[in-house]
Amino acid sequence: MSIVPAYASYQYFRVTSPAEHVVHVEINNPKRLNAFSQAVWLEYGRVFAQVSADPQFRVAVLSGVGDRAFTSGLDVKAAVSDSPLTTADGDEVRRAKLLRNHIEEFQTSISAVEKCEKPVIAVLHDVAIGLAIDIATCADIRICAANTRFAVKEVDIGLAADIGTLARLPKVVGSLSWVKDVCLTARDFSAAEALAQGFVSQVHDDKAKALAAALALASQLASKSPVAVQGTKELLNHSVNHTVADSLRYTQVWNSVALQGEDFATAIMSSMQKKKPTFSKL
Amino acid sequence: MSIVPAYASYQYFRVTSPAEHVVHVEINNPKRLNAFSQAVWLEYGRVFAQVSADPQFRVAVLSGVGDRAFTSGLDVKAAVSDSPLTTADGDEVRRAKLLRNHIEEFQTSISAVEKCEKPVIAVLHDVAIGLAIDIATCADIRICAANTRFAVKEVDIGLAADIGTLARLPKVVGSLSWVKDVCLTARDFSAAEALAQGFVSQVHDDKAKALAAALALASQLASKSPVAVQGTKELLNHSVNHTVADSLRYTQVWNSVALQGEDFATAIMSSMQKKKPTFSKL
Amino acid sequence: MSIVPAYASYQYFRVTSPAEHVVHVEINNPKRLNAFSQAVWLEYGRVFAQVSADPQFRVAVLSGVGDRAFTSGLDVKAAVSDSPLTTADGDEVRRAKLLRNHIEEFQTSISAVEKCEKPVIAVLHDVAIGLAIDIATCADIRICAANTRFAVKEVDIGLAADIGTLARLPKVVGSLSWVKDVCLTARDFSAAEALAQGFVSQVHDDKAKALAAALALASQLASKSPVAVQGTKELLNHSVNHTVADSLRYTQVWNSVALQGEDFATAIMSSMQKKKPTFSKL
Amino acid sequence: MSIVPAYASYQYFRVTSPAEHVVHVEINNPKRLNAFSQAVWLEYGRVFAQVSADPQFRVAVLSGVGDRAFTSGLDVKAAVSDSPLTTADGDEVRRAKLLRNHIEEFQTSISAVEKCEKPVIAVLHDVAIGLAIDIATCADIRICAANTRFAVKEVDIGLAADIGTLARLPKVVGSLSWVKDVCLTARDFSAAEALAQGFVSQVHDDKAKALAAALALASQLASKSPVAVQGTKELLNHSVNHTVADSLRYTQVWNSVALQGEDFATAIMSSMQKKKPTFSKL
Amino acid sequence: MSIVPAYASYQYFRVTSPAEHVVHVEINNPKRLNAFSQAVWLEYGRVFAQVSADPQFRVAVLSGVGDRAFTSGLDVKAAVSDSPLTTADGDEVRRAKLLRNHIEEFQTSISAVEKCEKPVIAVLHDVAIGLAIDIATCADIRICAANTRFAVKEVDIGLAADIGTLARLPKVVGSLSWVKDVCLTARDFSAAEALAQGFVSQVHDDKAKALAAALALASQLASKSPVAVQGTKELLNHSVNHTVADSLRYTQVWNSVALQGEDFATAIMSSMQKKKPTFSKL
Amino acid sequence: MSIVPAYASYQYFRVTSPAEHVVHVEINNPKRLNAFSQAVWLEYGRVFAQVSADPQFRVAVLSGVGDRAFTSGLDVKAAVSDSPLTTADGDEVRRAKLLRNHIEEFQTSISAVEKCEKPVIAVLHDVAIGLAIDIATCADIRICAANTRFAVKEVDIGLAADIGTLARLPKVVGSLSWVKDVCLTARDFSAAEALAQGFVSQVHDDKAKALAAALALASQLASKSPVAVQGTKELLNHSVNHTVADSLRYTQVWNSVALQGEDFATAIMSSMQKKKPTFSKL
Repeated sequence: MSIVPAYASYQYFRVTSPAEHVVHVEINNPKRLNAFSQAVWLEYGRVFAQVSADPQFRVAVLSGVGDRAFTSGLDVKAAVSDSPLTTADGDEVRRAKLLRNHIEEFQTSISAVEKCEKPVIAVLHDVAIGLAIDIATCADIRICAANTRFAVKEVDIGLAADIGTLARLPKVVGSLSWVKDVCLTARDFSAAEALAQGFVSQVHDDKAKALAAALALASQLASKSPVAVQGTKELLNHSVNHTVADSLRYTQVWNSVALQGEDFATAIMSSMQKKKPTFSKL
Repeated sequence: MSIVPAYASYQYFRVTSPAEHVVHVEINNPKRLNAFSQAVWLEYGRVFAQVSADPQFRVAVLSGVGDRAFTSGLDVKAAVSDSPLTTADGDEVRRAKLLRNHIEEFQTSISAVEKCEKPVIAVLHDVAIGLAIDIATCADIRICAANTRFAVKEVDIGLAADIGTLARLPKVVGSLSWVKDVCLTARDFSAAEALAQGFVSQVHDDKAKALAAALALASQLASKSPVAVQGTKELLNHSVNHTVADSLRYTQVWNSVALQGEDFATAIMSSMQKKKPTFSKL
Repeated sequence: MSIVPAYASYQYFRVTSPAEHVVHVEINNPKRLNAFSQAVWLEYGRVFAQVSADPQFRVAVLSGVGDRAFTSGLDVKAAVSDSPLTTADGDEVRRAKLLRNHIEEFQTSISAVEKCEKPVIAVLHDVAIGLAIDIATCADIRICAANTRFAVKEVDIGLAADIGTLARLPKVVGSLSWVKDVCLTARDFSAAEALAQGFVSQVHDDKAKALAAALALASQLASKSPVAVQGTKELLNHSVNHTVADSLRYTQVWNSVALQGEDFATAIMSSMQKKKPTFSKL
Repeated sequence: MSIVPAYASYQYFRVTSPAEHVVHVEINNPKRLNAFSQAVWLEYGRVFAQVSADPQFRVAVLSGVGDRAFTSGLDVKAAVSDSPLTTADGDEVRRAKLLRNHIEEFQTSISAVEKCEKPVIAVLHDVAIGLAIDIATCADIRICAANTRFAVKEVDIGLAADIGTLARLPKVVGSLSWVKDVCLTARDFSAAEALAQGFVSQVHDDKAKALAAALALASQLASKSPVAVQGTKELLNHSVNHTVADSLRYTQVWNSVALQGEDFATAIMSSMQKKKPTFSKL
Repeated sequence: MSIVPAYASYQYFRVTSPAEHVVHVEINNPKRLNAFSQAVWLEYGRVFAQVSADPQFRVAVLSGVGDRAFTSGLDVKAAVSDSPLTTADGDEVRRAKLLRNHIEEFQTSISAVEKCEKPVIAVLHDVAIGLAIDIATCADIRICAANTRFAVKEVDIGLAADIGTLARLPKVVGSLSWVKDVCLTARDFSAAEALAQGFVSQVHDDKAKALAAALALASQLASKSPVAVQGTKELLNHSVNHTVADSLRYTQVWNSVALQGEDFATAIMSSMQKKKPTFSKL
Repeated sequence: MSIVPAYASYQYFRVTSPAEHVVHVEINNPKRLNAFSQAVWLEYGRVFAQVSADPQFRVAVLSGVGDRAFTSGLDVKAAVSDSPLTTADGDEVRRAKLLRNHIEEFQTSISAVEKCEKPVIAVLHDVAIGLAIDIATCADIRICAANTRFAVKEVDIGLAADIGTLARLPKVVGSLSWVKDVCLTARDFSAAEALAQGFVSQVHDDKAKALAAALALASQLASKSPVAVQGTKELLNHSVNHTVADSLRYTQVWNSVALQGEDFATAIMSSMQKKKPTFSKL
């Protein structure tokens, strides 16, 4: 499939459009198990900022190139050389400032999927450890291959996960006992366990089938009102971080304009006439 | 079963008392699949405000009249004619104000079940789509018939659900991936799926059995200290919207009066004497 | 196994160290089914404050002495005589103040496990009702024996649970319908149900096996970087009570010092060299 | 001045329109120093709900009829006979429930001015004690006569102020030391002190001049874009209760529709042409 | 004046009762300008915990012994020797843990005045720098002598104030520009400036007059209903940290018991009969 | 004064360093009264991001070039042509999305001063209306010339201020009555009024003197420990948006590293030796 021209310049990401309004973003660094150096994560942030603003796309699918890994996470070797710890002069506080800003930049890049106004479906497969979980918790819907090997790996390299897993995982699944188990032990967990715990929504036989399912789901979402779909993502993310009362009020304000758009009328009309609706770009 | 006299004037709700201290509220608009027009939801809010204040009742069960639907949700046809969009003059901002206030009134009515000081057990059956989910997420315990067809249907009529589903569903079940799946796709989900995801607590063979189970559960709750039961509802709802520290403090203040009541003494005494306690109205 | 000398003075708790860096705290009041009077809970708070500050330990396991109960909860008879209700002069408000302060002291003692900087694994077995649930919701990981009989029992003695269950349970498991069911009905639930709902992470055949599993898990955690492990506990507990944005920022600040420690270098080096790392006390 | 017909049925409030788009609401119970019984506060809530929804008005001025009092606050004699304490059966908990609901109803009525979508200017004069402060803290701008005698009087009748003063006063003025002084001592404070502390914005020689100033200010506000004015009230009230980040986001959503209205274009055009703009009702 | 016997064992605090229900706590380390070492602050926390629970007292006044200083703040020499920095082994993270816990213990001691259920009036005089401001921001009402020399001094010893000044000062006075000025520059500010900014409520000619004014105010508060006074402190402190909506709800629950006490009836009766009321201890 | 080379490429800002560690940023668009078009605000955000990261600077002063205006605010003419309203196709919802993103970008640029890790002192003079207030509320300390003409002007162009004034002003000054007055009326207010309300900290005779005072203050801050100064800014900004409890905890974590740096030791040593300390860059 050909690269979408507007996304041709990315070095670490392969961006295609397998169906109308659907964008497929692939982490494209398979020789290094799709590991993330700073260059990779900065580009990752830019890809999804572009997708968010790009009216031709309504849904994104995220997966990894190759059959060895979604991503093995942080490229530790590159991380060591990129790190302010390696290069910084100064005392503990000055190193702390550099580290804080470094982590913030990294978090901001990875949060781009959460901030993306369109739904993002992550397809996990093969190795999906460490940063893979930070990435996956930002996605809206998680689908995986049966062979996926998950782990919140950071404890085993001597640190608490700091790119989002610990901030989001308790809000993404129900069992805090399980969350603490996998985060404290850094143990592997399987696709079946991920499904049972609600971390993923579907498990498929292999990567190809998982990806096919994700693309089918993406096409389905792409056929719906983008006003309704994007509003739903926004309001659900708001709800995760606010009280019921705050979210109800925010919803009133949000829908006070959303309901004025043409999508509502189009959808109701199509529904009554049993026709397939067509919606403008958003 | 005869209508409770104080509730005889409602047009769209059938209110009976199948057991001591138990009230059964039925949505009574079966010809229209128990759909909600503005008249229905305003009445719904009033019914549960009355139940909340009525000392003869300690628990409520909510279901739909008939075997076709708990509720098919918004009465779209009526909604279109009730809507400020249809009648409003003025520019985008003036329409927005009317819409905002319209949604607020609607939300407030549906939130009456959450605000009701007594537990409300929802019995879902047959069609339970759209507004049915907004309603169900306000209930305390959800029980359903095996044939229930659930859907967060709003995306398919071109809008983000705005009467509470998106504000409450992430707080009601554990898997955010599942929440986003069903809210973004508007797909049907079954009783079995609802049970597996923790959306409902029990599935029964048919509506009659689900209702019987709900009434048995209601009778059980009605036999307990209303001080303990209503306090438990209040403190759990507080916890959903506050930090642990805030909820612990609120609990101290709440129980500093609750523990002074006669129920505590009565319950302990009955427990020691293996007798069935009797509690005053609340 | 011999008592750890620094913990020899406790009357109601047996404190041993079954493995390096692992502390085992046992509720040691088996004649009274390990029930908690005020003397017991005050001591409980002190034990875990001491564990939190004690650099020789990295993980704690909590269980009950004997084969009859983890704990039957509040020692109701003692509670009645300890209670400000029994002894207080004065009007409703003066009694309320004493009750409020009494509950606060009790909550603070039980919260010591949550506040403990090291992970605490609770091993539930036999009777685990009432206060047992308040205690268990503070632990990080819950493991139980197949014969465990759980219940949020407080409604049956005429009160809303006030030592933490209602504040924490909705944050610990996914299904709010289930939480309200067990909290409102005070019914028993089994180990299997606790596992299915995500309240516990493992069920074992009997107490001995559950304890063995907990100790094995504890040993595994104790072998890891204490900086990573304790940071992970802290950041997950923060996340439960804050927005994603707040937790991401807090994580930056936390890790800006944690990453400077020797554990990160040690862990990475060991990982590269496939050696077992050794970490300093914390 | 004649009563506005749509508001003619109120017993305790005199509602006139002294200028275009301006409504003047007077507490009209001068024989009882404009004191509030339950009947008065319920009506008060209804008046301002009606003003909020009434497109003919853009600003409200609130004052008291007569030259003896803005309001002397709660009608204590009536309060004693209205109170659940007087009439309630039952134990401490049952009385507590009635009291809680009674206070909530009272708070909701008084909060109607805060919730009113149009700015409300309170004109304080003569006696302005107790409930007068609860009322005034809900208003947007406070103006007073030089003779006003203010007091947060509740401590002197044995209770903590519970209708809003304690919840709002720390958010309305800057000095917490002053807030605690006047709330704990229940002492009188003067117009000059109220001005120095920022509680009021203007002091005038007498009630007539204060009222004239308020009406002039109201007329000025009424001549401006109601979209801009009402949006400003909404966003400032949001800011008082939320973080900067939350308010910035809410502002984006709010103005994403507000900027589409005709007022923005009208105002800019008029500003460029140095003409007086005309805005549609809102 | 003689020491109150129950407080005779304190080494660094002189505790007397200059009037009925009034306790006067003096920092009693004048040779060291009332500076705080760890021993002093731990005792300080215990004194106010005792006052909070002691029914004989209803109001506290806090001042410094001698005419040289309220307090010169941290005893820097002692602090250096007490500090974990001096004694700790280990890497940056291990030192960080000790520092974190050390600061927490210090903060908790100083916060005892905020947590004290009775109002605390601070009398500032002479030197009142560094920790003096942390202490003063916890008090309810601040009164000072004209000669007081204030400063948020911490920046000048190379650190951000960490015992409460930065957390509380923006909530205690109105001008954030002023707060940042004095906190960033560490400059002195005078009693007159403190009054103009609302940091103190009264300035008196000298320490003796400031103290006399504080004791008179304390006696006035002590003559009022302790239920009303303590409830007012609690609800104002709640309001500083919560939204209006949360505080209104908390107020309902709080007063649902407070209104049942005898103070309300006593106060109203006395008010009607123009008699001085007498209230029971609290 | 010569431009700092690293900042030479900015078109709308003049960046000089009038004293060691002090940067002076001037809005340099005097022909248009320093008004802000989109190009200006995007550059503004970049300037302060660069200052934040630039270790040679410890304090920034912000003023406007020329003697006509600090800034007259939004360049309305440019704004109209930049606006998505002018260029956007599509219905209300599609325009709303573009507006929302446009406002967000604008807010993010202006918030750069708040986010800047170094203190920023704003020097207001001459015309300071509309966006000038949004900008000023982000600064840490505000100083002005006596001739400054302030206004929250947005209501007069038909909109609620949306770049930060409404989100921040209630947190920056004490009197909410005054805040609502100036925001709702859009009236001018003077330097004297700004000082009396706490909006500015100093008023000087003219712009030159105000600037001199700001530079002197900046030099003073620049001579202090940057660890202490930047930590103080961070913790005060945290406090504005969080509860006391949250800020105390955040402070512990922040200072657990800050206290380990060399500044603390350097500052204490210099203080004891009465020498001027020297601090490393940060």
